[in-house]
Amino acid sequence: MAETSKSNKMWGGRFSSKPDELMEKINSSVSFDKRLFEHDIKGSIAHLKMLEAQGIIDKKAARKLEGGLEKVKLEIKEKKFNFKAELEDIHMNIENRLYELVGRDAGLLHTARSRNDQVATDFRLWIREGIDDIVVLLQQLMKSLVLRAEENFDIIMPGFTHLQVAQPITLGHHLLAYVEMFDRDITRYQDSRRRLNECPLGSAALGGTSFDIDRNSTAKALSFDKPMQNSLDAVSDRDFCLEFLAASSICAVHLSRFAEELVLWASAQFNYVKFSDGFSSGSSIMPQKRNPDAAELIRAKTGRVTGSLMALLTTIKGLPLAYSKDLQEDKEAIFDCFDTMTLSLSVMTNMVSDVEFNQKRLQSDASIGFSTATDLADWLVRSLKLTFRDAHRITGEIVKIAEENKCQLKELDLDTLKSVNSGIDATVFHVLGEKESVESRNSLGGTAPKQVLRQVGYWKKRLM
Amino acid sequence: MAETSKSNKMWGGRFSSKPDELMEKINSSVSFDKRLFEHDIKGSIAHLKMLEAQGIIDKKAARKLEGGLEKVKLEIKEKKFNFKAELEDIHMNIENRLYELVGRDAGLLHTARSRNDQVATDFRLWIREGIDDIVVLLQQLMKSLVLRAEENFDIIMPGFTHLQVAQPITLGHHLLAYVEMFDRDITRYQDSRRRLNECPLGSAALGGTSFDIDRNSTAKALSFDKPMQNSLDAVSDRDFCLEFLAASSICAVHLSRFAEELVLWASAQFNYVKFSDGFSSGSSIMPQKRNPDAAELIRAKTGRVTGSLMALLTTIKGLPLAYSKDLQEDKEAIFDCFDTMTLSLSVMTNMVSDVEFNQKRLQSDASIGFSTATDLADWLVRSLKLTFRDAHRITGEIVKIAEENKCQLKELDLDTLKSVNSGIDATVFHVLGEKESVESRNSLGGTAPKQVLRQVGYWKKRLM
Amino acid sequence: MAETSKSNKMWGGRFSSKPDELMEKINSSVSFDKRLFEHDIKGSIAHLKMLEAQGIIDKKAARKLEGGLEKVKLEIKEKKFNFKAELEDIHMNIENRLYELVGRDAGLLHTARSRNDQVATDFRLWIREGIDDIVVLLQQLMKSLVLRAEENFDIIMPGFTHLQVAQPITLGHHLLAYVEMFDRDITRYQDSRRRLNECPLGSAALGGTSFDIDRNSTAKALSFDKPMQNSLDAVSDRDFCLEFLAASSICAVHLSRFAEELVLWASAQFNYVKFSDGFSSGSSIMPQKRNPDAAELIRAKTGRVTGSLMALLTTIKGLPLAYSKDLQEDKEAIFDCFDTMTLSLSVMTNMVSDVEFNQKRLQSDASIGFSTATDLADWLVRSLKLTFRDAHRITGEIVKIAEENKCQLKELDLDTLKSVNSGIDATVFHVLGEKESVESRNSLGGTAPKQVLRQVGYWKKRLM
Amino acid sequence: MAETSKSNKMWGGRFSSKPDELMEKINSSVSFDKRLFEHDIKGSIAHLKMLEAQGIIDKKAARKLEGGLEKVKLEIKEKKFNFKAELEDIHMNIENRLYELVGRDAGLLHTARSRNDQVATDFRLWIREGIDDIVVLLQQLMKSLVLRAEENFDIIMPGFTHLQVAQPITLGHHLLAYVEMFDRDITRYQDSRRRLNECPLGSAALGGTSFDIDRNSTAKALSFDKPMQNSLDAVSDRDFCLEFLAASSICAVHLSRFAEELVLWASAQFNYVKFSDGFSSGSSIMPQKRNPDAAELIRAKTGRVTGSLMALLTTIKGLPLAYSKDLQEDKEAIFDCFDTMTLSLSVMTNMVSDVEFNQKRLQSDASIGFSTATDLADWLVRSLKLTFRDAHRITGEIVKIAEENKCQLKELDLDTLKSVNSGIDATVFHVLGEKESVESRNSLGGTAPKQVLRQVGYWKKRLM
Repeated sequence: MAETSKSNKMWGGRFSSKPDELMEKINSSVSFDKRLFEHDIKGSIAHLKMLEAQGIIDKKAARKLEGGLEKVKLEIKEKKFNFKAELEDIHMNIENRLYELVGRDAGLLHTARSRNDQVATDFRLWIREGIDDIVVLLQQLMKSLVLRAEENFDIIMPGFTHLQVAQPITLGHHLLAYVEMFDRDITRYQDSRRRLNECPLGSAALGGTSFDIDRNSTAKALSFDKPMQNSLDAVSDRDFCLEFLAASSICAVHLSRFAEELVLWASAQFNYVKFSDGFSSGSSIMPQKRNPDAAELIRAKTGRVTGSLMALLTTIKGLPLAYSKDLQEDKEAIFDCFDTMTLSLSVMTNMVSDVEFNQKRLQSDASIGFSTATDLADWLVRSLKLTFRDAHRITGEIVKIAEENKCQLKELDLDTLKSVNSGIDATVFHVLGEKESVESRNSLGGTAPKQVLRQVGYWKKRLM
Repeated sequence: MAETSKSNKMWGGRFSSKPDELMEKINSSVSFDKRLFEHDIKGSIAHLKMLEAQGIIDKKAARKLEGGLEKVKLEIKEKKFNFKAELEDIHMNIENRLYELVGRDAGLLHTARSRNDQVATDFRLWIREGIDDIVVLLQQLMKSLVLRAEENFDIIMPGFTHLQVAQPITLGHHLLAYVEMFDRDITRYQDSRRRLNECPLGSAALGGTSFDIDRNSTAKALSFDKPMQNSLDAVSDRDFCLEFLAASSICAVHLSRFAEELVLWASAQFNYVKFSDGFSSGSSIMPQKRNPDAAELIRAKTGRVTGSLMALLTTIKGLPLAYSKDLQEDKEAIFDCFDTMTLSLSVMTNMVSDVEFNQKRLQSDASIGFSTATDLADWLVRSLKLTFRDAHRITGEIVKIAEENKCQLKELDLDTLKSVNSGIDATVFHVLGEKESVESRNSLGGTAPKQVLRQVGYWKKRLM
Repeated sequence: MAETSKSNKMWGGRFSSKPDELMEKINSSVSFDKRLFEHDIKGSIAHLKMLEAQGIIDKKAARKLEGGLEKVKLEIKEKKFNFKAELEDIHMNIENRLYELVGRDAGLLHTARSRNDQVATDFRLWIREGIDDIVVLLQQLMKSLVLRAEENFDIIMPGFTHLQVAQPITLGHHLLAYVEMFDRDITRYQDSRRRLNECPLGSAALGGTSFDIDRNSTAKALSFDKPMQNSLDAVSDRDFCLEFLAASSICAVHLSRFAEELVLWASAQFNYVKFSDGFSSGSSIMPQKRNPDAAELIRAKTGRVTGSLMALLTTIKGLPLAYSKDLQEDKEAIFDCFDTMTLSLSVMTNMVSDVEFNQKRLQSDASIGFSTATDLADWLVRSLKLTFRDAHRITGEIVKIAEENKCQLKELDLDTLKSVNSGIDATVFHVLGEKESVESRNSLGGTAPKQVLRQVGYWKKRLM
Repeated sequence: MAETSKSNKMWGGRFSSKPDELMEKINSSVSFDKRLFEHDIKGSIAHLKMLEAQGIIDKKAARKLEGGLEKVKLEIKEKKFNFKAELEDIHMNIENRLYELVGRDAGLLHTARSRNDQVATDFRLWIREGIDDIVVLLQQLMKSLVLRAEENFDIIMPGFTHLQVAQPITLGHHLLAYVEMFDRDITRYQDSRRRLNECPLGSAALGGTSFDIDRNSTAKALSFDKPMQNSLDAVSDRDFCLEFLAASSICAVHLSRFAEELVLWASAQFNYVKFSDGFSSGSSIMPQKRNPDAAELIRAKTGRVTGSLMALLTTIKGLPLAYSKDLQEDKEAIFDCFDTMTLSLSVMTNMVSDVEFNQKRLQSDASIGFSTATDLADWLVRSLKLTFRDAHRITGEIVKIAEENKCQLKELDLDTLKSVNSGIDATVFHVLGEKESVESRNSLGGTAPKQVLRQVGYWKKRLM
């Protein structure tokens, strides 16, 4: 079945001269694709058992091959395996070693299979596992955030638009915004997992095979939902790589937004958070300087992830069917993305648990800039049935008085307020304080502590 | 509720001086966001009816406002509306006109709403509709492909790997590979649609509102599955834009692969397809030159779509919560992507229907390079129970004979074959012809005409 | 010479049926490439005069054609020109109108030219002019910065690393850092201008021409340094577009860094700058809220520029020689980039002139976190010849004392300092104050006011 | 001078607890930045000698330190150096070892320097060397191309537009088009080298230093053109990285275009080139299958290079001054780009020397589609002074006759030609043959063999 490669020293072949050394350097992928070894062997064993069940190879050979493959796996795990660049890739390295171990029967594994469907299968298995790992890390990050949100459900802080203080909000509410983002990330990864979970095995080089194979059984053995339905597509498709990179890019953007906030908040000017020694680096002589290195690096690594997405989109653009060597570029992009995401998510989770919030400062900043002015205007509309135009005019006048008196809105007395509009009564104070303001924003999904607790409850039920 | 902008000439405000002219130029978005007008008005009416139902505004005002909004919509549709850049965006343009039409009650629309949740709602509605349009276009393209696949279910052509002829396949099989890709695209768009289908309305500027609103009812009225659960997230999230761009990028890559094949196939060297006058441009004096302009442009536009994805990922990277003006850059990226995708998909669909396949040439190319050599090797393994090593050696010898005789494998006579291995019998000819080769690859998803017809049947049931 | 296109209604041709409507939509570029009209006509006139000088066309025809072209230019300038999508591009629109004006002689312009070298010439001319415009805008921005730097040459502010206060610096020094960046941008644009300034005209469709043309003369007439030396390269090269986009991307990143700082500095927490009404938008009821919309938009538009670069890199990747229709995608990417850059640069220039620095706050923040601790350590090394290890230990002890006393280093008295190390004398105070600290950093390019003035002098000489 | 880091075990410090293990993993860069070791030591020695010359450190200490640094360099070169991740980066690893070797004097190296200016200097030195390496490789590639162009200066082949045969050209001319591209690449690299060749050393952490250093002397010692003029810019600038990536991206696009052509040309359908065993992989049983793996990989790696550019643009976007940890992400992007470019260029150079052109096939394809029809039309215009309109009509009629007779234009007899237009005489045959056609395109930079030889001569003089 398999079209054998020139550098397949096992099978000999028509090529006489040694591949150019540079050619080997550009062509060989075993230095990175060896990460697939377990999935490669898993796929081979599933294929083997199917061939046996279909009577294509006999039981004895099947057992021998399975034993050989298990031995190879052990050798690799125990770092006793000698990877050879000249054998090009992980598949040929394993096959070659299998040949050393079991002899010419090793070739039976070639039956009804080619490296084209083999690598597609291996890589889907690898990414599927990668997604599962990332989902677990995302859930841990969400848990960290939910616990900190619960702890800070009613801590007042400034809500920003344009990095200007706009309205008081609760810290719990702010943290839960990220829980929403990371939850969407999980669903994106899960959607991509569902979509990739179809088995290319049995598509052979590109057109399927004349052997009487059972693709449903290999698909099932490898926990795929079903076999892919078009063999050409099966060997040339890398959507599952692109989608993994796209989901990771969006997730990395979320991480970058939070990381940016942490860097800002760790500045002396904001002074909203303090990182422990474990998550900052400092100066031996400038005690207050705690550089938020980890947050900066997480922010920075966004570029790396989106760069990998861009790289693979560009690589696949305009490739004719079916398999082209260009597709070999998929591996390093994915491995780097996976390593970056798992590291960033782990570090962020620990930082969230670690970070100390400066509640006093958060609270005091929440009153910057007459942040409850909109509450006042809303109160005028709601309670006095004024139009917005009038409510805004009146609010403007009251703010001006407060400005002149260098006091906050809640510090004005009722008479002063009445002097602007006689209809105002003492109930207005229910909205002028930051605490009252956030409590009043009790609409579904609003910033009121009640809403935060409701949502914390929801997430704890979902996550813990 | 709404924090009003300086350039909102309706509501007056504290700003005295006229915005700098350049500032207006960079800040104003109405030149492009006017495409949202219907969704903006739809959202306003849903909001209005909810306010009325909750007793926040009275029936009379509600009717007046609704009438006004419908009139504005008509004016815009009939191109009688005078868009003003100084009113910044579509929301303020509509509101301003509403004020002219109904007077100060226009301000009531501000109740419990801000431009931040308004634009997020509008844009979700717009993209949701955009996704539905694209899904229909993808289905039409798939239909075109399925019909051409059915028509060509058993037409033999070369199957390529590395752009080298590898094995004979069927044209129907090749075309159906793209159907698989476009079907995955549809599911990606649908997943993103499901994820975006939550309603930000009622999140107000960022923290929700103190008015007693009913977010479930507005969500329902606008056919959203439910309200978003965190108001900060609701106004600062643009995942739905990124995901639309990511799904489009992958789809564009699929289009580019097919377009590349069409460009190749239209070359004199391949000569597999011919475009009608409608889809090529030519030379008045070089009759055989038919430039595949449309295919080239579709291929080229991949860059544009992935560029827009990259642009928005970069824009959102590192943005602190909640709303920042940076988010205004989402519109043009999405509009350009939508226009590009709908145009490319439409043109591709017509090209697929239009293109004439040169079946004779496809067939003759399928025999290039002893393309059934793997079939022969497989036959030796299967029928003579040879090892792969021996089967490959024997095949190599036979190919050499054919090469020397300048004939194809199927043209060798049985005696010649027997001279290499005496076990070979006449049944070997069942795999040496291209027709026999493709028929034999009848494994699930393989290239055999039977498999093509099975899959055509599946798609016709699904699509037609 | 020119291979004429199917949609060239002027020349008739072999194509009988009307191009598919969608095809026209995807194929036609006149809606955007009409921006090239002046350069197209300029190029045509240069070509014309050369043809005349070489005796390829006669004087009378040349004059008639030139008159016609000038008339067309005027019509377009005065918006009296009727652009027709079915004539595909600006070249054919002009040629068609010329035919109407001067009759069949219009066809003489085709001699020794094709649209392939024509559009390459036009676009180089356009971008060359675009670069010149951008360089002027960059110089204006630099001037603004230099003037503000001069004004603030000795204003103390915190110097940040990791957004943590690290050392006192001068505001003038900070502003001049951007002058360095924008100056590098200018040299990058200039390098790309020099590289693009070679003339493709005369390369014809791809292989040159058999007419006895004088490429040196057209190159000279169009102010190119010389003709391009390979006709295939001349029609298929778009390096000049990529390089323009790359230079713009780096420049946009510079703008984004400054814009980010302005957004940060405009926050209440930093409170370093205040924008006038012209460059911020605000709230009618929250007087201190001045949203830095312009800075945010400039920051955001970085994505757009880098996205265009990415788009065109992707489009050109893997294109065989010579001209392919894919190259038509170059125009919109470049136009959008140019418009974005010129707008961003203009707005930034005005913002720099407009912004009000809060010198008091800058100064007071400069003392955060014992920012002169490194100055103290350096003094110990320099004056007492201590090792760094010892100097750091002693500095650490002194900082601790200041911390306990809640005072700054400069507020400690000499006895206290001596109690830690008896060698310390009163000259240490020359480095403990922020003013003294910055004055001491008088190494070449350092932050000392003297260095700032030196560099201001240099720039003023260069720019004004 | 240097602000010391927490993980700098040498200097102790205030931080008590061990950095979180994950933090070390994300923060440590020595696994990749050790590639800078020689440049780091070179920079340190230059700094040292300047300090000595300025009398800041004494001769004895200077000699000891220099000896120590040379010893460290040797240890690293001989792979006897024990890199420690907990020492974070290459700078601290070297410094720490230096301390072990020479004791506390090691700290003197800190004088008037920080890691911020140190790493900026090291990386500029590294990239400068990288550029020089790449320029040499580009020159070798150009030489290969020029030699093959000379060898094939008059070999006729089809010239393509839209991948359609347009006109006959010469193979030498086609190959020289790439020489032009790679020459522009060299100038781009050289421009970026010139721009990066300014020395940041002495900028210290961000604001310069109070020690009396001589930046001109260190700049000179390290072969920089001059010191950078603004210390803030010097430590936060990464333009030189972006520009290296941008130049590489454009160069990679050039490689991808040639690689695409080689893949196309290696197909059976084109059959223009044959790679030796060294540059293709094949099938043991399909003798004609020679997969152009190397060309495919070079084409594919374009994505990787442009992805790295995108990554770093995204990372630096919106970073405030001066140094942020985000900048640490510059290294891996650059290293990967350099490795990719040097490998791709080397492999391409060898492939160019190796590839065998199928001159017979190239020649025969050049006559496809009446490729000299434009020559005929041009002849009619030139010799008979016909208008283009008439020339095109007549050419169309003649082509039609040839089409009906299934012959080429040059195979028609004079009488037949005269029957269409009586003015035609025998000199027309001077342009109807492919050979005559290319010879006639002798305009400057045209495809005529004479032009090719002229340009070959130019390049040989320049390159050899």
